[in-house]
Amino acid sequence: MPTDTPAPAPALAEEVERLLAAGRAAALALYRSDADSRRQFVRETAALLGQRLDSLLDANLRDLHAAGELPSAMRDRLRLDAQRVAGMARDAAAIAELPEVVGAIVDRRQMPNGLVVERQRVPLGLIGIIYEARPNVTIDAAVLALRAGNAVVLRGGSEAAHTNAKLAEILRDALRLSSLPPDAVQTPRLRDRALVDALVGRAGGLDLAIPRGGTALIEAVSRAARVPVIQHYQGVCHLYVDGSADLAMAATVAVNAKAQRPGVCNAMEALLVDSAIAGRAVPVLVDALRTAGVEVRGCPRTLALVGDRAVAAADDDYGREFLELRCLCAVVDGVSGAVEHIGRYGSHHTEAIVAADLEVAETFVRSIDASCVAVNASTRFNDGGCLGLGAEIGISTTKLHAYGPMGLEALTAVRFVVRGQGQVRT
Amino acid sequence: MPTDTPAPAPALAEEVERLLAAGRAAALALYRSDADSRRQFVRETAALLGQRLDSLLDANLRDLHAAGELPSAMRDRLRLDAQRVAGMARDAAAIAELPEVVGAIVDRRQMPNGLVVERQRVPLGLIGIIYEARPNVTIDAAVLALRAGNAVVLRGGSEAAHTNAKLAEILRDALRLSSLPPDAVQTPRLRDRALVDALVGRAGGLDLAIPRGGTALIEAVSRAARVPVIQHYQGVCHLYVDGSADLAMAATVAVNAKAQRPGVCNAMEALLVDSAIAGRAVPVLVDALRTAGVEVRGCPRTLALVGDRAVAAADDDYGREFLELRCLCAVVDGVSGAVEHIGRYGSHHTEAIVAADLEVAETFVRSIDASCVAVNASTRFNDGGCLGLGAEIGISTTKLHAYGPMGLEALTAVRFVVRGQGQVRT
Repeated sequence: MPTDTPAPAPALAEEVERLLAAGRAAALALYRSDADSRRQFVRETAALLGQRLDSLLDANLRDLHAAGELPSAMRDRLRLDAQRVAGMARDAAAIAELPEVVGAIVDRRQMPNGLVVERQRVPLGLIGIIYEARPNVTIDAAVLALRAGNAVVLRGGSEAAHTNAKLAEILRDALRLSSLPPDAVQTPRLRDRALVDALVGRAGGLDLAIPRGGTALIEAVSRAARVPVIQHYQGVCHLYVDGSADLAMAATVAVNAKAQRPGVCNAMEALLVDSAIAGRAVPVLVDALRTAGVEVRGCPRTLALVGDRAVAAADDDYGREFLELRCLCAVVDGVSGAVEHIGRYGSHHTEAIVAADLEVAETFVRSIDASCVAVNASTRFNDGGCLGLGAEIGISTTKLHAYGPMGLEALTAVRFVVRGQGQVRT
Repeated sequence: MPTDTPAPAPALAEEVERLLAAGRAAALALYRSDADSRRQFVRETAALLGQRLDSLLDANLRDLHAAGELPSAMRDRLRLDAQRVAGMARDAAAIAELPEVVGAIVDRRQMPNGLVVERQRVPLGLIGIIYEARPNVTIDAAVLALRAGNAVVLRGGSEAAHTNAKLAEILRDALRLSSLPPDAVQTPRLRDRALVDALVGRAGGLDLAIPRGGTALIEAVSRAARVPVIQHYQGVCHLYVDGSADLAMAATVAVNAKAQRPGVCNAMEALLVDSAIAGRAVPVLVDALRTAGVEVRGCPRTLALVGDRAVAAADDDYGREFLELRCLCAVVDGVSGAVEHIGRYGSHHTEAIVAADLEVAETFVRSIDASCVAVNASTRFNDGGCLGLGAEIGISTTKLHAYGPMGLEALTAVRFVVRGQGQVRT
């Protein structure tokens, strides 16, 4: 039997109990709230973001100063400007317009004894969102979770502390303006790293914890958690070009999948080419990628076809999430070779095929276990907006509850409601 | 940060890796299997249960002998006879007839760029089921999980070891007869208690762990788990009799909810009576329960109305899962009093109301957070069979993924499939 989580320090334990008690009460009020109040909250948030731009940018400057030397990518994620805040407000406002999910009837059937059985969407309850120094997540996550009737505890990265405090103030004021309890959005007072472990480690506390960030964050939260966690792990996404593929389409899709935004989880990390057309296809595809600035790391069969236009792939380039303008290129034997390669190196995120032969495409779809399988389309479409969810809180690689982009529906539970005329069980 | 789970002993670690590797390969084969093979497997299982009755009962006798002195309820759960085996076969056969869920399209939409986005049910993968000495679970759980395209590792209670070994043999032979990999059903060779912790504690191993049994088992599995767990906790189920209720209906429903099968999780544990009708209703309801053999433990207001026909309720009778012919009776002030009481003492399992005023009933439904809310019907209907699921693997009180009875659908994940004509993201 594993040892239990060590008891947190008294101040931490007290803070966790306070957050959970206040959050639980707010969650109950949200559970019973009407759609109009929640919609109003989202609109008020969008409006306040505009009205409080100056003080928000001031707070952000303080964070940027305090952070000192940061890797430029991190600094860029932390930084707000008028345009970015306007974008946050616009994204929030769009969430107000999405169809209501709370109360929706998923299905209804009448049983032979006359009982009417419905399955109905209800809020999940109290959600903890643990993330890094990306202020936009504070608004995104809160607005989406609350629109679906949930209360949240937000724990963002320390580097964004001043910005997040301002954003939390906006969210709580927007709740007040909509006659909803401000404690539906809480941020811990203590900045102690151990707080996250104590919060997610309290069995029966949160209804769900969502870590949004790198692998280290996800693993730390998962390890400490005694509540359900939805993980948003890395995407090692493959694109398989079948022998039947239109080669021009394959090149366009491959370049888009890798180069349109190389640093994201749904970017292509490996191109697999059917050996039946490799002699013709590999040079064309490699050149198209190179023209887009991509360094191709080739398997031996690839190298034999393109020489020094590709770099020899190292062992750990297979199954690697490059997140930059680099990718693997490997020759495989038909769809079964592609399926085998993906089974070995894929991460259940996004897998794509380009094929004119739709029977081959269906074999691929049936054989691949991933949150999103794309036929004749870029891997980059595995995204809540592109798939019609309106917005997303992340892309789940956990199969339970949500697999793929999580929109409003994924932030609800489905319960049973039974209506009778006095029926009893015999 | 909590300490990590201690590394298991080498023999345990090896057994876990063996189970996971073989289970993973079998899960992949099941993922790609057709519905007919899985249906055939279920039918072969039902047939073999009949054909091997004698050796099964022999094995069961050995378990009963080895167990020696057992509490009678435990002994009863462990015991098989011809009738019970026939029941197991019949239940299995019924699962063969349920509609196929794997591959089902949950929804389909076409995006403005022409992409067709489907959400499709796929198997979850490899499921660990940890249960107590109830041999029927071995068949139930395996048949339901495999019908939904999953592979399983079954770890039943030691007391049923011989019986379970025979049942596993039947399941594996049924797999062979259906051209499916026998490792889709595995039972650990080692009986070490620490095996369960090591199995569920291996991050990235099982796709899901389902503990089926008492609170201690559920908590032990949840504590050790580094994979998703669906919990089937206790049911502290309430029945609220509103001022508008038909009193005869209320009495019938209350007696059924408590006394039809008192030892199960959807039995009523507390009767709440609206103070508006308490003077008339409490004596009638208490007498009806007493006539059915139920000991009523009353709140002070109840006792004032029925005198010694009820026993004074102790503090811990509130929120208690009696699981026998005993229940609490408390007077509350209207639907808001009932909702408050249930919010404090309920366990999110099953909550019911009897009311002629349907507006009051809707207030109750909207305010109660439970896996099943019943209006004018017995709590006993919160059951996969009664709610139209055909069969269930348990009743989830976790809100994530499944909330309430889990049938075939709850044993699947929903992924995205995108079909295009070369679309790329701009």
